Amino acid sequence: MESTSHIKIKKISSGKLTDAEDDLAVEEPLEIQMAWQAATGYMQKNISVTMRTPGHDEELAAGFVFTEGIIQHIDQIKHIQAGNNTALITLAPGAMPQLQQAERNFYTTSSCGVCGKTGIDAIKTVSVFDNGPDDIILPTAIFYGLQNDLQKKQPLFESTGGMHASALFDLHGNFLILREDVGRHNALDKVIGNAFLNRQLPLHESILLLSGRAGFELIQKAIMAGIRVIAAVGAPSSLAVQLATEAGITLIGFLRNERFNVYSGAQRVHVTI
Amino acid sequence: MESTSHIKIKKISSGKLTDAEDDLAVEEPLEIQMAWQAATGYMQKNISVTMRTPGHDEELAAGFVFTEGIIQHIDQIKHIQAGNNTALITLAPGAMPQLQQAERNFYTTSSCGVCGKTGIDAIKTVSVFDNGPDDIILPTAIFYGLQNDLQKKQPLFESTGGMHASALFDLHGNFLILREDVGRHNALDKVIGNAFLNRQLPLHESILLLSGRAGFELIQKAIMAGIRVIAAVGAPSSLAVQLATEAGITLIGFLRNERFNVYSGAQRVHVTI
Repeated sequence: MESTSHIKIKKISSGKLTDAEDDLAVEEPLEIQMAWQAATGYMQKNISVTMRTPGHDEELAAGFVFTEGIIQHIDQIKHIQAGNNTALITLAPGAMPQLQQAERNFYTTSSCGVCGKTGIDAIKTVSVFDNGPDDIILPTAIFYGLQNDLQKKQPLFESTGGMHASALFDLHGNFLILREDVGRHNALDKVIGNAFLNRQLPLHESILLLSGRAGFELIQKAIMAGIRVIAAVGAPSSLAVQLATEAGITLIGFLRNERFNVYSGAQRVHVTI
Repeated sequence: MESTSHIKIKKISSGKLTDAEDDLAVEEPLEIQMAWQAATGYMQKNISVTMRTPGHDEELAAGFVFTEGIIQHIDQIKHIQAGNNTALITLAPGAMPQLQQAERNFYTTSSCGVCGKTGIDAIKTVSVFDNGPDDIILPTAIFYGLQNDLQKKQPLFESTGGMHASALFDLHGNFLILREDVGRHNALDKVIGNAFLNRQLPLHESILLLSGRAGFELIQKAIMAGIRVIAAVGAPSSLAVQLATEAGITLIGFLRNERFNVYSGAQRVHVTI
């Protein structure tokens, strides 16, 4: 399935209406399902439906169940089968999904990302990773080129203007991976899902770059993956700053070429000339 | 509760780090609850938790339950009590919430806005309004000033850079109402909730202006309110265009001063010089 779709439109410019063509970001539902062997026999359950841009669906499914705390380790997954707007995650023998993690209180169709989770403490999921040693030093110059790098690597945004992106860079500013999606949470789940499937978690030594705003939900997912440095091109929310501060994350916002704001974890940022 | 919060940050600019202050868009959970008199006695149920910017919580709660199809008419509401991050909607005697509408299949914490609804047909909610006569003519000049008008009326975006906005204009381009929120679906629920509470639905004679992108979920909510003309500053998704086309909505995207794209319902758009 394609990530963009081509359509005919009418364009109004300088008082003239002309026929034109345009590329749209494809938005389609993905149903994430999970199958496992319970004491009572074979179980299969629908976990989530998310409106996503097709592509990297296995990563999205893996990233979603990991960042939601439903599974904790790649060895719990036997295989993932994606196609026809569904992704079925089959668990390895003996593995059990932590569905109460995803199910606590949810009684909603809200698009808040924390559907039905009441209160900040209730909505926080807990990372499986230890903090470990932390001697990260971030020269300011590391961040100067990131936004340019991001723009160059967003082919889908380039053609549609309608995609969010998440990208990883190493602590020297070298590009590692980028994913695009109509949903910003999906773009991040794909990036984390890729690392999860490739046994690269925790991402202690990575910088997460977000193409837009940084809300609570994205910080939460980053924490689950062990990410310690987040830079957003857009604004953070109050709750994003609060959560990043509590988790010891360096949170940067309004990243422009040689300008940015540091909202938390400023002790890691060292000015370079 | 405030809609913005003021914090101290570090600012990096031209190779210098300075202490600075910044305003953040407040993001807090709102729990929407509903109480009604059932045959078996008094019922109270948690309907949804959404991460929203505090302010106009009654509108948000009313707009949410209306656009989700849980209630159909303002007379079904006795009163709404909001405070302490909850909004309790008490129904009038005899009124019953259509919770199967909100509950169908939901088994998810996804932030897709269609949690657990499977397939496009399953996720479409149905407007209670007839189409009625439709002789809308939209001179292109009507749209030329809208984006400027929007920017002038976004005080929270102005200070935080982190808010989405939804606004209504009449068919002559006169400004009616604007709401801002960290969640674009919340901003729209507040606008529709305001009209719902003031008995102004259906909004057949209004233009809905969206500050960002137009996804499936926003078009869906607009349809529920009887809106026929939607203009977005950002890009529409493929599913937004599909749904707008099916519903006979005029959908405009990439709205700039004197330029925009028409994705559906172009027959209503008349070029003016």
